[in-house]
Amino acid sequence: MVLRLIQRLWGGLQPGANSYRQSRRVYSLQHQAQVTGEMMEALREVVGSANVSTAMAVRELHGKDESMHRCRPPDIVVWPQNMEQVSRLAEICYQHNVPMIPFGTGTGLEGGVGAIKGGICFNLSHMNRILDLNVEDFHVTVEPGATRKALNSYLRDSGLWFPVDPGADASLCGMAATSASGTNAVRYGTMRENVINLEVVLPDGRVLNTAGKDRRFRKTSAGYNLTSLFVGSEGTLGIITKAALRLYGTPESIVSAVCAFPSVQAAVDSTVQILQCGIPIARIEFLDDVMVGACNRFSSLQYTVLPTLFLEFHGSDQSVEEQVQQTEEITQTNGGSDFVWAKDQETRTKLWTARHNAWYAALALRPGCKGYATDVCVPLSKLPEIMVETKKDLVESQLTGPIVGHVGDGNFHCIMVLNPDDLEEVQRVKEFTDRLARRALALHGTCTGEHGIGLGKRKLLEEEIGEVGMETMRQLKATLDPKNLMNPGKVL
Amino acid sequence: MVLRLIQRLWGGLQPGANSYRQSRRVYSLQHQAQVTGEMMEALREVVGSANVSTAMAVRELHGKDESMHRCRPPDIVVWPQNMEQVSRLAEICYQHNVPMIPFGTGTGLEGGVGAIKGGICFNLSHMNRILDLNVEDFHVTVEPGATRKALNSYLRDSGLWFPVDPGADASLCGMAATSASGTNAVRYGTMRENVINLEVVLPDGRVLNTAGKDRRFRKTSAGYNLTSLFVGSEGTLGIITKAALRLYGTPESIVSAVCAFPSVQAAVDSTVQILQCGIPIARIEFLDDVMVGACNRFSSLQYTVLPTLFLEFHGSDQSVEEQVQQTEEITQTNGGSDFVWAKDQETRTKLWTARHNAWYAALALRPGCKGYATDVCVPLSKLPEIMVETKKDLVESQLTGPIVGHVGDGNFHCIMVLNPDDLEEVQRVKEFTDRLARRALALHGTCTGEHGIGLGKRKLLEEEIGEVGMETMRQLKATLDPKNLMNPGKVL
Repeated sequence: MVLRLIQRLWGGLQPGANSYRQSRRVYSLQHQAQVTGEMMEALREVVGSANVSTAMAVRELHGKDESMHRCRPPDIVVWPQNMEQVSRLAEICYQHNVPMIPFGTGTGLEGGVGAIKGGICFNLSHMNRILDLNVEDFHVTVEPGATRKALNSYLRDSGLWFPVDPGADASLCGMAATSASGTNAVRYGTMRENVINLEVVLPDGRVLNTAGKDRRFRKTSAGYNLTSLFVGSEGTLGIITKAALRLYGTPESIVSAVCAFPSVQAAVDSTVQILQCGIPIARIEFLDDVMVGACNRFSSLQYTVLPTLFLEFHGSDQSVEEQVQQTEEITQTNGGSDFVWAKDQETRTKLWTARHNAWYAALALRPGCKGYATDVCVPLSKLPEIMVETKKDLVESQLTGPIVGHVGDGNFHCIMVLNPDDLEEVQRVKEFTDRLARRALALHGTCTGEHGIGLGKRKLLEEEIGEVGMETMRQLKATLDPKNLMNPGKVL
Repeated sequence: MVLRLIQRLWGGLQPGANSYRQSRRVYSLQHQAQVTGEMMEALREVVGSANVSTAMAVRELHGKDESMHRCRPPDIVVWPQNMEQVSRLAEICYQHNVPMIPFGTGTGLEGGVGAIKGGICFNLSHMNRILDLNVEDFHVTVEPGATRKALNSYLRDSGLWFPVDPGADASLCGMAATSASGTNAVRYGTMRENVINLEVVLPDGRVLNTAGKDRRFRKTSAGYNLTSLFVGSEGTLGIITKAALRLYGTPESIVSAVCAFPSVQAAVDSTVQILQCGIPIARIEFLDDVMVGACNRFSSLQYTVLPTLFLEFHGSDQSVEEQVQQTEEITQTNGGSDFVWAKDQETRTKLWTARHNAWYAALALRPGCKGYATDVCVPLSKLPEIMVETKKDLVESQLTGPIVGHVGDGNFHCIMVLNPDDLEEVQRVKEFTDRLARRALALHGTCTGEHGIGLGKRKLLEEEIGEVGMETMRQLKATLDPKNLMNPGKVL
């Protein structure tokens, strides 16, 4: 009863850490196809017995991501070793009408890996090679198990790096699948701008190279942009087995700084002005006072507990100096504090680790509670209005939701910390997040800047994109995945 | 007979200026549907009699672009005044199974506007409003008749500009439809990176807002990327009736320069090194010696007749100074001449007008001849190899084809100047352009960096994207345009 009420409130919010174990019967009833013994044999034949598992503990590990969405374990987990195996596995699933769910690192935030109709989870972590590094062309190809940090370690001596950084050490193909971005997107763009080509196994096992096999030009106008169609498709159109990525030269100089402001408005106004002046800032991250306090406690820092910007500048020595000078002029006009500098690698790493641990710092505010991150994104000019209103709403709703955001993109998160067993609080959070999303939509914004739709935002997507947009997306899905086998129930 | 031979050689290459008049019967036989009197009445009812024309002179004006592709006049030309009229016209065409061809300024280069199955040409030039300029958000919306130059005139006092510049004063929605780019793309990206949202009338008259109505965020991960699907679709999926575009702050300082090199290799090597050093160059255009000579004559200039780079730097005074200094170091290492400067607006305009008139300068090399521009694009590291080989091939093939190119993107054009009545020369050009395209494909490149597929490159698209890619594109087309009415016969 309690479980069903929460499900109604939040479409599958996980009520407490272990309760999904009590609800196995619920999800097993929803399977659209039975996995037969014959099919199991066929899977084993492709990847070997050691790479197929039906153990409940394994299945449960693959049934949820880092969000509060309830665990929905797949029936089977397989570990393919290469694209050919993925293709053969897909053929088998297609023949047997069994759903396929790609799994990278499980670090998603919108329930994207839950097997809501059962099926086979493709754990792609064994396919983790980094291929075809081409320094002259600023280009590399990665398999789906290769993570962001693994790539940057690999690149360390090349003079190049891959800047898209969602915080988690996510798999790069998973980041492509969810159109991830993060702290550097204000300067370097999101996955949408940095994926050059994808190799995708289609539902029936055919292999598509979205820009043609081994192609890696800087631009093209050859036919429909299939690469962009698959970036952000959240595994609902095919399984990404390779991604060609754009790389960047490591900046000659990197300087980080922290600046505190008397008000949210002042910090956000500064952000808007910095962008409007065309300063090519690499990172500009906002933390509200609650978030700064939480980070101070969690990461042993001593920043002033005020609305704050974490800034980073990339460029030549001379260019960085100029950027810093222009930025300081703007922040001081808005009543900002003197910059607290993080110039050497160690201090910078401490600063950004603290920023990336914001999620855990927020959770530590209320031990035993769970987190849920909102993800709206609005035009820059609307940012002061929506952030000030949202802060007010948080206070009035008596909710814990420290704010952290990639404000240079107009994107911010309230990390809602809540007791999932307190139904009244769950209800209040649900109402708050819906209000916030609709506030963003009313201001020409989006309900999700970078986390994707997954399970949790399908209703909001309809409001955002409108009837014809939804019909068009459904047509595309039906065309490319006619049996609705690819990560069914997500996005649409 | 002669006509048919040339058609076989080049899929509709126009043999002399007026010969399409002789071949009316050929194209009228290919119509897939008859335009009835009833339908004419319905069209007139929507847009008024003055905005419907069946006059042959008018139809012929709408049957070809600036390329050599033979004129294929539509049956009727209509001038809708607003999106609602476009939608009602589309409904009528859909009911009567009559093809629809959107027409902007007719400045395309791949035969994209030819009505190869007859039908109705939608001349969108009356819909030319510029709407919703939002300076704070670097955002503007344009109707399909608004051109690039009209927008930049409109923006003159706003401190903003729209950088994508294909040379021609094309309509911005037409540029979106063909995924255009041009001289500034190396710094500011192509239309793919600069279109935020599109309003599209679908074949049956429904209206799609690709990112949701009035949405204008900097990033999103909400569902499939419909905007990118329509950018570059060349009118084959729907008619773009509005485009929301990203704007940029006018640079504080702009400096242009010209630098001559002892060899093609030296010029191209410099380009690659400038990009690899991360210098944020705004324009870097290559002209070979033949092209420089032609521009000198056509635009009364006195540049040294050698392989040459036209460069432009944007930024703060200080940043431009630094960029220039770094660039000069690189060019001098490669044996480049001292920079010939174009610092004031007037000299800069003269320089870039000369560059944009390269097409006409090339045509002037052989008065009475016609032009055809190749458009390959390869990874930067492959640029020296392909350009040197292509120059050699031009000489060996005894063809006039001065080279001009957006080499910062790996994209260059041979402007083939040929006598269309000399079948032997036509054949040699055809063989040369095919060799060039396949050379680019072999080097991981594309057959078209920015002109699109249109009529002329459908076969090459198949080679570039492969079988599964073509199947996927055909599926998308069949889904979104099930009656094959939207600009039929193009791209696929």
